[in-house]
Amino acid sequence: MKAALQAYVDGFNAGDPAVVVALFADDATIEDPVGNPPITGRDAIAEFYANNVASGAKLSLDAPIRGSHGNAAAMAFTVEMPNMRIRVIDVMTFGDDGKISTMRAHWGPADIES
Amino acid sequence: MKAALQAYVDGFNAGDPAVVVALFADDATIEDPVGNPPITGRDAIAEFYANNVASGAKLSLDAPIRGSHGNAAAMAFTVEMPNMRIRVIDVMTFGDDGKISTMRAHWGPADIES
Repeated sequence: MKAALQAYVDGFNAGDPAVVVALFADDATIEDPVGNPPITGRDAIAEFYANNVASGAKLSLDAPIRGSHGNAAAMAFTVEMPNMRIRVIDVMTFGDDGKISTMRAHWGPADIES
Repeated sequence: MKAALQAYVDGFNAGDPAVVVALFADDATIEDPVGNPPITGRDAIAEFYANNVASGAKLSLDAPIRGSHGNAAAMAFTVEMPNMRIRVIDVMTFGDDGKISTMRAHWGPADIES
């Protein structure tokens, strides 16, 4: 799970959304930020990451990625954009196939610095 | 929610488990680490924090606490113990009364340093 999250960060920062999308299950859901309606499925996830990578944002880990004793892993990072930063904690859960089944991004208005 | 998580860290580090326990709803659940059977209810939670605080562990935030656009907040921290460290990400959800309703602690065997 930690390797998948590291591949997520690396693929994102390499400007390669396909690498990121390939980490997800076909019917995965993304709730980013937590509190927004989730998006579901490979097409919606591909569009989401294409847009985010195209924005020029880069991800910088704030601390080592955490695993668990179950099917979840988590990471604290900062999204660096040209004119702002967002401090985020992502929690991903995984299916038996090793693919990400859910992603939830914890950040709110007060986690944005401009 | 961020103030509650900061109070959690401060109460824990002050050696005052009652401060921590008071942040939780009466029927709250704790899954620590994620993958373990949850514990439920004020008595079990009080025992859990009494034991943890008594161990001499201290919590050190690795990055600013994150909020969300929903009912969740999250924080990355390191548990400092006399002979080891555990890197953890906690995610708490909150009820309408502002009390913590669920706590999930993300850490695994590879997040322990001795």
